[in-house]
Amino acid sequence: MKIDASPARGMRDLLPADVAVRDHVLDTIVTVYRRFGYQRIETPAVENIARLQGGQGGENEKLIFEILRRGLPEYAEPGTRIHDLVELGLRYDLTVPLTRFYGSNQASLPTPFRSLQVGPVWRAERPQRGRYRQFSQCDIDMIGEPSVLAEAELIEATTQALADVGLDGTTVRLSDRRFLAAVAASAQLPEEAWPGFFITLDKLDKIGWDGVRAELDSMGLPHDRVIETISGLQETTPAKLADTLADAVPALADEVIDDLATTAACLDRLAAGRSLTWEFDPSLVRGMGYYTGQIFEITHPQAGGSVAGGGRYDKLIGRSLGRDVPACGFSIGFERIVDLLDAPRTRAALAVLTEPGVTVPDALAAARDLRAQGRTVEVVPRSGKFGAQLKRLEAAGFTAFITVTPEGIRSGERQLQ
Amino acid sequence: MKIDASPARGMRDLLPADVAVRDHVLDTIVTVYRRFGYQRIETPAVENIARLQGGQGGENEKLIFEILRRGLPEYAEPGTRIHDLVELGLRYDLTVPLTRFYGSNQASLPTPFRSLQVGPVWRAERPQRGRYRQFSQCDIDMIGEPSVLAEAELIEATTQALADVGLDGTTVRLSDRRFLAAVAASAQLPEEAWPGFFITLDKLDKIGWDGVRAELDSMGLPHDRVIETISGLQETTPAKLADTLADAVPALADEVIDDLATTAACLDRLAAGRSLTWEFDPSLVRGMGYYTGQIFEITHPQAGGSVAGGGRYDKLIGRSLGRDVPACGFSIGFERIVDLLDAPRTRAALAVLTEPGVTVPDALAAARDLRAQGRTVEVVPRSGKFGAQLKRLEAAGFTAFITVTPEGIRSGERQLQ
Repeated sequence: MKIDASPARGMRDLLPADVAVRDHVLDTIVTVYRRFGYQRIETPAVENIARLQGGQGGENEKLIFEILRRGLPEYAEPGTRIHDLVELGLRYDLTVPLTRFYGSNQASLPTPFRSLQVGPVWRAERPQRGRYRQFSQCDIDMIGEPSVLAEAELIEATTQALADVGLDGTTVRLSDRRFLAAVAASAQLPEEAWPGFFITLDKLDKIGWDGVRAELDSMGLPHDRVIETISGLQETTPAKLADTLADAVPALADEVIDDLATTAACLDRLAAGRSLTWEFDPSLVRGMGYYTGQIFEITHPQAGGSVAGGGRYDKLIGRSLGRDVPACGFSIGFERIVDLLDAPRTRAALAVLTEPGVTVPDALAAARDLRAQGRTVEVVPRSGKFGAQLKRLEAAGFTAFITVTPEGIRSGERQLQ
Repeated sequence: MKIDASPARGMRDLLPADVAVRDHVLDTIVTVYRRFGYQRIETPAVENIARLQGGQGGENEKLIFEILRRGLPEYAEPGTRIHDLVELGLRYDLTVPLTRFYGSNQASLPTPFRSLQVGPVWRAERPQRGRYRQFSQCDIDMIGEPSVLAEAELIEATTQALADVGLDGTTVRLSDRRFLAAVAASAQLPEEAWPGFFITLDKLDKIGWDGVRAELDSMGLPHDRVIETISGLQETTPAKLADTLADAVPALADEVIDDLATTAACLDRLAAGRSLTWEFDPSLVRGMGYYTGQIFEITHPQAGGSVAGGGRYDKLIGRSLGRDVPACGFSIGFERIVDLLDAPRTRAALAVLTEPGVTVPDALAAARDLRAQGRTVEVVPRSGKFGAQLKRLEAAGFTAFITVTPEGIRSGERQLQ
């Protein structure tokens, strides 16, 4: 009988070796973030559908798994709008829930609040190799800190977390939405056209300057000046960042330049003596519409794109709280990092091989004695040819075994590898 | 402006102190189970709706959060059955996904396979104080082991996990579905009436023997003999279990008695010298319809009901695999245990208080030096009255602080509590 036991479309099961490498990455990241004072919170996997479709999620709002209201009749009334049957949705990121969480629990939280979230999110994307409709995100956010202390600390903590995971040689790319806005304003782009301009610029990696030019043309936007300014800043030397920016974008507020110079100074100190580089990237946009200040991402030579990204979003908490609270966040591309690492082959487990005739109480007692030393011990009844069984144990990740006879004789420990 | 930032109905946010106690419980349990060789797997939160409604979930199948098919039109066609719009559902337990997982991945798994699952499940129950529509379960299962080695090991591992969490003085209650079936058969109850008989007996704690008698009456079932047999076995001395059972239920197969005697011998050895008791409980049913052999639960004086429960289910894997595979599982009532424990008040964090004028790079460097010793360190700008700020730090769980001046002078470390 052939039964289809596959997971639902676009979903996947995680086998023990998969979970082991994911747990290792997660434990490492969480340990580093905790040392910086970030504390884990959890929000439910589902939120009210109106909140998920409030405009904060951009394109992700089209990818929501929608959950039916309870207590519906068996048949839909004629003329029923299907959307009206929906009450809840699965979250597509951890930022929408975080801003709601802060709005709901702010009175019980310190200022600034250093939040750490790890957990699954769901997006109904077209299934493709290596991309799944449920995947994990790992976000840190500092809420209530107006200065670039937040940006600099988030970047330091995340580069440290990546280094501890084993990803050395990362590059931090830094920019500022206020810089992009000043460039757009200087080039006489009308303010309502900025979001479209940002979206186009964000595609530079894929479509090149010619593609950016063509898209801006088709939107009827002038482009010579913005492209000249941005491409002219692409090779900016970090040491000369403040002066170069002041020259290239005279309309840029001193505050923006000072903030970038401060983050730059922190990055210089951080990179000294470590396998870490950083650069000012004037074409960096980061997709989300809600960023209001510095934006940043981290790339690694082995990863196709970025392995982490984030920025300041000072106007988002206000939508849930009723008053603005400064906030800044950094999200690690957890799945991308896991894909870069190898799963462990062994797990330092000891097999207690029980010969036929050993009673269950005796078998469990033998394992108990060994486990009391803090070891991982499994009771395995002897079966089949001895050599073949040892091969199976080795394949299952065991590193050693002992044998126990019905007379209570325990062999010495023997290594499997 | 008043904005509702509450979680969706029946859902809840977990604050840092909540997560800390949950993480502690989970880490402790997982550490113990790992030492017994159980390996963590993960399945997606959503499954195809047909699988969730396959009859394996009992009453829980009525509580499924249903997820709409993608790509539906805006308006429902006249006469649309709402159920036909549903493609997926949120899982209501970890057993349905496990049996599917085993059916799908069996070729990559050892025999027996010791599975460990921890994760959220969702049930659309009527919201009430202390009960939530998303909650965590923690299950271990041994798949492929036909002998009571499985039962005895699952019970040992779980009592050890509970003891390590701090729940001493637990009681293990043991029975066997084959025993209940033999009692029912001896009393001439027709086999199709057994599930109803089990469901009624399961309510004994709540409705007493009079209630059981009344319910069986209303079902038209004879009850004098089953009640006499079961109540007569309620004070069975563990040491005399095998003899007493053989006398009271002559139809009981030797194999069932031998299995119970073996588990009993394991429990005797386990309880020796530990704060643990066990008893044979002839009225124990455990709700699920899929159990086929021994069933067990663990109670604790502080908890209202059981803190863990499980049993053997040899016919369930077959529904996903096409051939039966023996299996046995134990599920810890994670939420109930968390409710019994207190949240930690402090988190051994050190505050680096930076006086006005300390630059961001200097502030981060001071924290970095202290963090290099493996400590949890937060940068906190000095603000307001010193004494009031120290009180706020203490309330936020900090245990110590140092101060840093713009001249780079760092004070010695001072304790907060």
